[in-house]
Amino acid sequence: MTQNYQDILEDIYHETRPLLGQGRVADYIPALAQVDHSKYGIAIETLEGKSYQVGDANIPFSIQSISKVFLLSMVIRVLGKKLWSRVGREASGTAFNSLVQLETEHGIPRNPLINAGALVVSDCLCTFSPQPLRHLLEFVRELSSNPQIQYDSLIANSERKFGHRNAALVHFMKSFGNIKNDVDEVLNIYFHQCALMMSCVDLARAFLFLANEGIHPHTQEALLTPSQSKRVNAVMQSCGFYDESGEFAFTVGLPGKSGVGGGIVAVVPKRLSICVWSPELNAKGNSLVGMKALELFTTKTGISIF
Amino acid sequence: MTQNYQDILEDIYHETRPLLGQGRVADYIPALAQVDHSKYGIAIETLEGKSYQVGDANIPFSIQSISKVFLLSMVIRVLGKKLWSRVGREASGTAFNSLVQLETEHGIPRNPLINAGALVVSDCLCTFSPQPLRHLLEFVRELSSNPQIQYDSLIANSERKFGHRNAALVHFMKSFGNIKNDVDEVLNIYFHQCALMMSCVDLARAFLFLANEGIHPHTQEALLTPSQSKRVNAVMQSCGFYDESGEFAFTVGLPGKSGVGGGIVAVVPKRLSICVWSPELNAKGNSLVGMKALELFTTKTGISIF
Amino acid sequence: MTQNYQDILEDIYHETRPLLGQGRVADYIPALAQVDHSKYGIAIETLEGKSYQVGDANIPFSIQSISKVFLLSMVIRVLGKKLWSRVGREASGTAFNSLVQLETEHGIPRNPLINAGALVVSDCLCTFSPQPLRHLLEFVRELSSNPQIQYDSLIANSERKFGHRNAALVHFMKSFGNIKNDVDEVLNIYFHQCALMMSCVDLARAFLFLANEGIHPHTQEALLTPSQSKRVNAVMQSCGFYDESGEFAFTVGLPGKSGVGGGIVAVVPKRLSICVWSPELNAKGNSLVGMKALELFTTKTGISIF
Amino acid sequence: MTQNYQDILEDIYHETRPLLGQGRVADYIPALAQVDHSKYGIAIETLEGKSYQVGDANIPFSIQSISKVFLLSMVIRVLGKKLWSRVGREASGTAFNSLVQLETEHGIPRNPLINAGALVVSDCLCTFSPQPLRHLLEFVRELSSNPQIQYDSLIANSERKFGHRNAALVHFMKSFGNIKNDVDEVLNIYFHQCALMMSCVDLARAFLFLANEGIHPHTQEALLTPSQSKRVNAVMQSCGFYDESGEFAFTVGLPGKSGVGGGIVAVVPKRLSICVWSPELNAKGNSLVGMKALELFTTKTGISIF
Repeated sequence: MTQNYQDILEDIYHETRPLLGQGRVADYIPALAQVDHSKYGIAIETLEGKSYQVGDANIPFSIQSISKVFLLSMVIRVLGKKLWSRVGREASGTAFNSLVQLETEHGIPRNPLINAGALVVSDCLCTFSPQPLRHLLEFVRELSSNPQIQYDSLIANSERKFGHRNAALVHFMKSFGNIKNDVDEVLNIYFHQCALMMSCVDLARAFLFLANEGIHPHTQEALLTPSQSKRVNAVMQSCGFYDESGEFAFTVGLPGKSGVGGGIVAVVPKRLSICVWSPELNAKGNSLVGMKALELFTTKTGISIF
Repeated sequence: MTQNYQDILEDIYHETRPLLGQGRVADYIPALAQVDHSKYGIAIETLEGKSYQVGDANIPFSIQSISKVFLLSMVIRVLGKKLWSRVGREASGTAFNSLVQLETEHGIPRNPLINAGALVVSDCLCTFSPQPLRHLLEFVRELSSNPQIQYDSLIANSERKFGHRNAALVHFMKSFGNIKNDVDEVLNIYFHQCALMMSCVDLARAFLFLANEGIHPHTQEALLTPSQSKRVNAVMQSCGFYDESGEFAFTVGLPGKSGVGGGIVAVVPKRLSICVWSPELNAKGNSLVGMKALELFTTKTGISIF
Repeated sequence: MTQNYQDILEDIYHETRPLLGQGRVADYIPALAQVDHSKYGIAIETLEGKSYQVGDANIPFSIQSISKVFLLSMVIRVLGKKLWSRVGREASGTAFNSLVQLETEHGIPRNPLINAGALVVSDCLCTFSPQPLRHLLEFVRELSSNPQIQYDSLIANSERKFGHRNAALVHFMKSFGNIKNDVDEVLNIYFHQCALMMSCVDLARAFLFLANEGIHPHTQEALLTPSQSKRVNAVMQSCGFYDESGEFAFTVGLPGKSGVGGGIVAVVPKRLSICVWSPELNAKGNSLVGMKALELFTTKTGISIF
Repeated sequence: MTQNYQDILEDIYHETRPLLGQGRVADYIPALAQVDHSKYGIAIETLEGKSYQVGDANIPFSIQSISKVFLLSMVIRVLGKKLWSRVGREASGTAFNSLVQLETEHGIPRNPLINAGALVVSDCLCTFSPQPLRHLLEFVRELSSNPQIQYDSLIANSERKFGHRNAALVHFMKSFGNIKNDVDEVLNIYFHQCALMMSCVDLARAFLFLANEGIHPHTQEALLTPSQSKRVNAVMQSCGFYDESGEFAFTVGLPGKSGVGGGIVAVVPKRLSICVWSPELNAKGNSLVGMKALELFTTKTGISIF
């Protein structure tokens, strides 16, 4: 089986490279628009300790919304079930609906993996952590066993400059009483988590604890309880791909999370984690090549949770 | 392991019986409101051919929306991917949104397990089957190995009499061109599928092919391809519990489908299917005791797809 | 002043004729699509008994939604304030919202001049009139002093054939209990009122009682009380032009009602009524030339309620 | 006629005083909640130069949204029709819809008299006026011939402190490019205009130019063109009472504007302006006694635009 994964990754890589050029790099902030379109990498980390890589798997990129899973894990670890009084666990329907639903549901976002939800989770972190940005960075470095991971401050500033929609969401939720801290502090955490720079290898390592019932595969530390870990996976399954979450479940069939930087991470419970990066996005905002690569991965390996 | 399931079912049954009385039986049609509140049964069927039952597992009840999975399977089998141009695969958000979304998404329902989607699937069946109601009944009888299964015509008539919201949905989709057949014929299929009477044992048997990559466990007939079967499970996972689909994934972690008659069926891929019936519903319209019983089942057995 | 109106009408007619060709005839039903695009007429009737006409002012056309004002008047006359428990008096916002609002407002349409509201008004008529279609025809003939007015049965049939959206609205409201009679009977009234054939002269005459505090200007019969008449005008002012009601108030400044057949009627309280007909519509579904003609009319005469 | 108005005002005052106690003072900011519930005054100013007053007509109160008409007039005067590319002229439907509509209509508010629209108008003022707050104050003092009018800085601060929903609106519109200036500067104008303190007499005087085709009745200065003045009235008619604009047109039948401070101003074109103040609001956020007083005023005088 070991050798297989390397062969399969290379097959996928060669089959899907011709798709490069068909998507569109995120351009809502200039810092993202400048990324090299042709970058493409995949990394697998298994619970047995094996690593497989192809392409640009070691180049750090802006992980964007993938970081929402790190925030969620940090906060669930501390607050446990209390979190769920402030954020739901259901898919959001369209982007369009999220604002309506904030209104009709009195400032409670649908789930922690949409922007509104991650802003509430950032607010929770802000409440219990005296140095939330340092805290988050340490958590991610520990998960990846990579002390070099950094925030890209150009991207964080760019996010802030063009972040009026996120500012609108925080103010709106604060008007319902569902943001406890200062609006600018909450936004600062949010804009920085978007700007974490990690490679496919970093991300595959960092998500491996979610394939391992919450236990860090190297240090054996229980970061989450088995039940918490299973539930983070369930939330990724239901809500990890915006309005393409059902589509991802349908074609790939694994819990995962995408970011507009072009990264997608997926978890095969009890076996491995896999990260693909290709900056060009499809119409729904998920990596076009990444979606296809993961579909091929489950097809070629027969791996599925269903 | 075999003996375990029977013990576990009995434990669950005794732990959850005290919850009877806390939910509310569906009363939107008189025929449903008359059901005995205190009924409660569970059945498991395994791929190894074992059966486990507790309580009222052999009493037929109105399966309501659970039948949407049968319709979907029949139509996917014939149309394959063509179905997905007429219905989506994403969670619907709230009931409230489904109508808005039909409007903004030009008559394409979000998924085949909400009413609008099942009406489109009924329309597809109507197109390719000369005797759709007989066809559906035969399919269900074959899946359950029970030739006694019937429609309850009192319930079907009651559905029609109080079915103005479903009539509104069909007319609305027809105005967008997404219903091809006569409105009354489509509604007739829909109202009858709601009125199928099956027991927990019937339903557990009937869903077992979805734990078996689409193959009927007794006849070995390939009803769906492995890929189709996996995808029906993925759709159930994302969309099977209305606006509580994320909640079900979160607390139970299995693909499944509920009905307002109080039944819930869930599938453990490659192992078994399980059906619970208790007519009292929670605020989201899913069986209150059924949800709790399935949560206990995955907790006690450690079974989860995540 | 008398001579003025004729001169003004002719000026307007010549200034606006060059706009013909810029709009689009309603084509949602074939019977409407076949109308001659180049038809264009205007008629004024004053309380002093004078008539002014230009162009095709005597050719009957499909009055469509203008008839909603006749229905409303007939029903207010009988039910008085009781009507307002079943339909509101506020502008509807966009067409898009009307369905959402029916949902959130439990089947109570926003006002009697949108389709949903006129369907409720039709239902009221159906309740108190044994022969509602004959009753409506007699009312309109009496208002216009024209016993030749007829329903166009080709148009009524065409409305029915393509009327699935209206059927959806009736079923939806019936599911909330806000339709009392048989769905098909209510739709039959609705589809026929759309199909009334009247000329500009007929319509200007038929609306003159609303400029006259509810009193038929020829027979002196009090069809509505002064207060009822004023209130029908207020509803036209707020809601008479779908999502262009504010625009019409802004540019024309008179209470009025349009139809997708290309007719627009407006009322100058205590003075006159005016009807324009040109079948080509603007993007919001109101007669393109008609809107311009009425804007010129108020500009040239200085007439305005503001 | 002169004497009549005074008698009528006193009749209305005595008939409606028993309604005090049935509404609820706005409490979304503490500064408003502290107002004396029992205050009640009415003032009329006519184009002939007569004044009529009853009750607390000379006590300044927080005019809140009534100031939106002043902002709108200042900006229309300078920008003319250019304003209408950034804000619409249609009623908003429910409060609930305004956010949805901002989303679907790409950051263009429905009209200048809802919060979102007034924020855009504030942004326009900010662009062309070097000292917008001083500019607004001078405009209002000139209209009222009262150099004592002030902003209440406690109220302005309270608005800011509890103004997260308005902050959300500005950020949201800025994300669509429909706010040009700094978010905090725009909010500062907005929060101050809410905090203008004026009496019934001040407001009746300040609105009299809108009954006079835009001409200041004392200085004879043309503040607006006749066409602009007529259009401001039309916008008040369509949109001046939030989701009760149709209701106000229906029962009162005059263009007007209300504020949550309990003030309502209405205009009788070519005759007079009238202002009522009673802080207790009805369920739609308009002065309960004020609505009734104006309904009685039009009933008793027979004045109506319809």
